[in-house]
Amino acid sequence: MSAPELHPDLTLLGPLLGTWAGPGSGSYPTIEPFAYNEEITFGHVGKPFLAYGQKTRDATSGLPLHAEAGYWRPAGPGRLEVVLSHPSGLLELQLGTIEASGDGGGAVIELRSSAVVGTPTAKSVTEVHRRFELSDDGQVISYNVSMAAMGQPLTHHLHAELRKQG
Amino acid sequence: MSAPELHPDLTLLGPLLGTWAGPGSGSYPTIEPFAYNEEITFGHVGKPFLAYGQKTRDATSGLPLHAEAGYWRPAGPGRLEVVLSHPSGLLELQLGTIEASGDGGGAVIELRSSAVVGTPTAKSVTEVHRRFELSDDGQVISYNVSMAAMGQPLTHHLHAELRKQG
Repeated sequence: MSAPELHPDLTLLGPLLGTWAGPGSGSYPTIEPFAYNEEITFGHVGKPFLAYGQKTRDATSGLPLHAEAGYWRPAGPGRLEVVLSHPSGLLELQLGTIEASGDGGGAVIELRSSAVVGTPTAKSVTEVHRRFELSDDGQVISYNVSMAAMGQPLTHHLHAELRKQG
Repeated sequence: MSAPELHPDLTLLGPLLGTWAGPGSGSYPTIEPFAYNEEITFGHVGKPFLAYGQKTRDATSGLPLHAEAGYWRPAGPGRLEVVLSHPSGLLELQLGTIEASGDGGGAVIELRSSAVVGTPTAKSVTEVHRRFELSDDGQVISYNVSMAAMGQPLTHHLHAELRKQG
């Protein structure tokens, strides 16, 4: 089947479409720092949302670490809603903004959790902030994630820099 | 890469692994009845969860209808936690049970939402029950979904019967 036309509400989010890969690093007061390789995919089916998936592997062993799956929804001009599931038993509802930046293909996305819900066996996470920056003519995504978890205040947790594949 | 070994906590859930496809039908007091074709995939990476994805298409037009993505986690013997994201802006946290049934490869899974969270632009859903039955020597999944939404009490919403592919 031919690819469907991009929904007009996705104009600002369109540059995210595709597969992105690169290295990242994580830290948190309760754990040892770690390094990972990540792959993110954004897809669409012609409707006004992007399907989002993310997987990371340990930079040394290559073994699977984390994953996330969910959807990004435009919610009016420059506004975003993101719903995410984690295999660790967490659900994130993120609200935020997307703004074009720079001369060509750049954008800044700021997301803040309005709800974080965990299953009975999940670790306690109460707040997650995510900031994505699209740069280098839309060829690089870098992001920072901060979280409040395990009794810690909002603290930097993850940073990665991913390059568009293919 | 070779497929990783199934985590021992996934023994009961293992028969779900793979791709399932078939027809379904939906109804609800607030909408016209509809027919769809569905594909579900369950995957694993060697860790104690299954990655779950679902997509439906209109039975007549073939256009995309719904999708879901999330993770299924064993939470002690016969107990399950499921986290799901919907492109409609909903998050479901489901808790329930899995029990082997019949002589070979059968199982019954009962899930009830302990939380349903929606973005500001999502429709109001307050409760979702899901029942899956694995039968025919583990070759068929049928399910029923009921939900309380848009001011309606818990009401039957979806039924489908999917056959294992490949």
